[in-house]
Amino acid sequence: MIELTIRETADFLLNRDHFLILCHRNPDGDTLGSGYALQSALRALGKKADILCNDSPARKFTFLFSKQQPTENQYETVVSVDVADQNLLGDALSSYRDRVDLAIDHHRSHRPFARFLLLDSKAAANCEIIYRLLLEMKVEITKEMADFLYAGIMTDTGCFCYRNVTPATHRIAADLIALNTDYGEINHRLFETVSQRELFLQEKVLKDLTYHCEGKVAVITVTLDMLTDANVTEGELDGITALPRKIEGVEIGIVIKQRGEKEYKVSMRSSGIIDVSKICARFNGGGHVGAAGCTLHGDLPSVKEQLLKAAKEALL
Amino acid sequence: MIELTIRETADFLLNRDHFLILCHRNPDGDTLGSGYALQSALRALGKKADILCNDSPARKFTFLFSKQQPTENQYETVVSVDVADQNLLGDALSSYRDRVDLAIDHHRSHRPFARFLLLDSKAAANCEIIYRLLLEMKVEITKEMADFLYAGIMTDTGCFCYRNVTPATHRIAADLIALNTDYGEINHRLFETVSQRELFLQEKVLKDLTYHCEGKVAVITVTLDMLTDANVTEGELDGITALPRKIEGVEIGIVIKQRGEKEYKVSMRSSGIIDVSKICARFNGGGHVGAAGCTLHGDLPSVKEQLLKAAKEALL
Repeated sequence: MIELTIRETADFLLNRDHFLILCHRNPDGDTLGSGYALQSALRALGKKADILCNDSPARKFTFLFSKQQPTENQYETVVSVDVADQNLLGDALSSYRDRVDLAIDHHRSHRPFARFLLLDSKAAANCEIIYRLLLEMKVEITKEMADFLYAGIMTDTGCFCYRNVTPATHRIAADLIALNTDYGEINHRLFETVSQRELFLQEKVLKDLTYHCEGKVAVITVTLDMLTDANVTEGELDGITALPRKIEGVEIGIVIKQRGEKEYKVSMRSSGIIDVSKICARFNGGGHVGAAGCTLHGDLPSVKEQLLKAAKEALL
Repeated sequence: MIELTIRETADFLLNRDHFLILCHRNPDGDTLGSGYALQSALRALGKKADILCNDSPARKFTFLFSKQQPTENQYETVVSVDVADQNLLGDALSSYRDRVDLAIDHHRSHRPFARFLLLDSKAAANCEIIYRLLLEMKVEITKEMADFLYAGIMTDTGCFCYRNVTPATHRIAADLIALNTDYGEINHRLFETVSQRELFLQEKVLKDLTYHCEGKVAVITVTLDMLTDANVTEGELDGITALPRKIEGVEIGIVIKQRGEKEYKVSMRSSGIIDVSKICARFNGGGHVGAAGCTLHGDLPSVKEQLLKAAKEALL
């Protein structure tokens, strides 16, 4: 693996063609924003570029990120965006795991898998890196690209709320808004909007909420039955995932989402004082200081016990 | 009334002393941020400055805005910040209604009452104006001032979510963050945090939620009994106030809050397409395009009917 500067990465992209851009599985606004903005920029330069992802964008994203089909059989250059680990490409893209030419990422926990790497772990969103890259490539940034990039930045910063925000984040947002970005619409649809079904689920989930460690830890569980009852998909759980951490006094918010009979996907959030990526790393997961995840197997009570033990130790 | 430029306002303040700064009643982060930052700046210049407000800051503000007492009997200069109308000073400050020397405000609906006025209705938050004013006055902006100003800006923009945000808003936020603002803590405490009591109230309120105009209008009612049951004060209703507008498909979110037996305070929110300040103006209220308020008297059913009729007409 060779680490590239932003200038070297720009040259690499300018010298290549027939791009395949890979997003991570269960795509969020940042991986989609990065991929779609890069695709739009490469196409503006007269190059061919497709996007692939293990999963279709969740319904809330479809107003901005249209579903895409591959247009070529062979690609010259494979680029991953916002993918911290080759496993996060997902099963459908597993054949590309060892064929990524360039990874553009901002995760501190990035595990190198590509031939070349552009990594900036200080960037709050991967879209910040893509923005700087487009400037370096002298691409004229269109309103469409600005919308994609803005969506990525507001997703990964919780609408500029999280502690990962830097002066650069706000300066880039200012530049993007000056390009007539539909930021009001994007914020409303991606950040603020809650469906009636989600509100229904929220009510159910709140009944199950438990507090631990003198109210410093809050745990919520979402079972497959609850999802079915509310007719809510996993991709619509962002609001629920953020909920426990929002409660006054809570330092670690834990959401346990059932995936299979004995499989639980865990989302952990902190206000940034406790590094939840370290807690999740104990269960072979990862992420950022304030937002991380992992997967545990077993019975729900045992899963919960293991998580609480780890959270308690982190609070010491 | 004489309208001043920012330069003239800076000179006015630099030439004066013994300031009394007035915030609007039921103070929000923007009026408090404006007042406290201006006070801090004037004191840094060796001047005397007190702050008065009809109501104490809500509990969630106390980590940032300490309670203050007047230190002088006579003031040379009275300045109001973020006060759109002299009635919004509140009863306790009614003696100052006709004694305001300078009003600094950003409300489009501002009704002049002061001798001098600095108005910028394009500023998303009044704190943006104060920031530019401090620069103009060549005050060295401390971390404390930056915290105050950041709190005001994030309050009035819903953490940079609302359509009132401009490139200037983000550029000022970038400057403030560069001054080591505790933005993560401020965002978490003022924007994200919900108390267990609020969650309890939210559950009750959700049961009463009604939809109208094919789901384009959602109405929530908070009665005095509900507040008592949940042990929640009016100042803690921000989350509830924002809720109806967040529901998918809702263009006008209405929250009816009981104030007395036959008195209802109404908060109206839109995603910015419908101008709710116009709807509220019909009931002698006012505010911004996306957030406005008014007070109605009568029985709840009649209050609701009047509001729905006005909302329906606005949607035509």
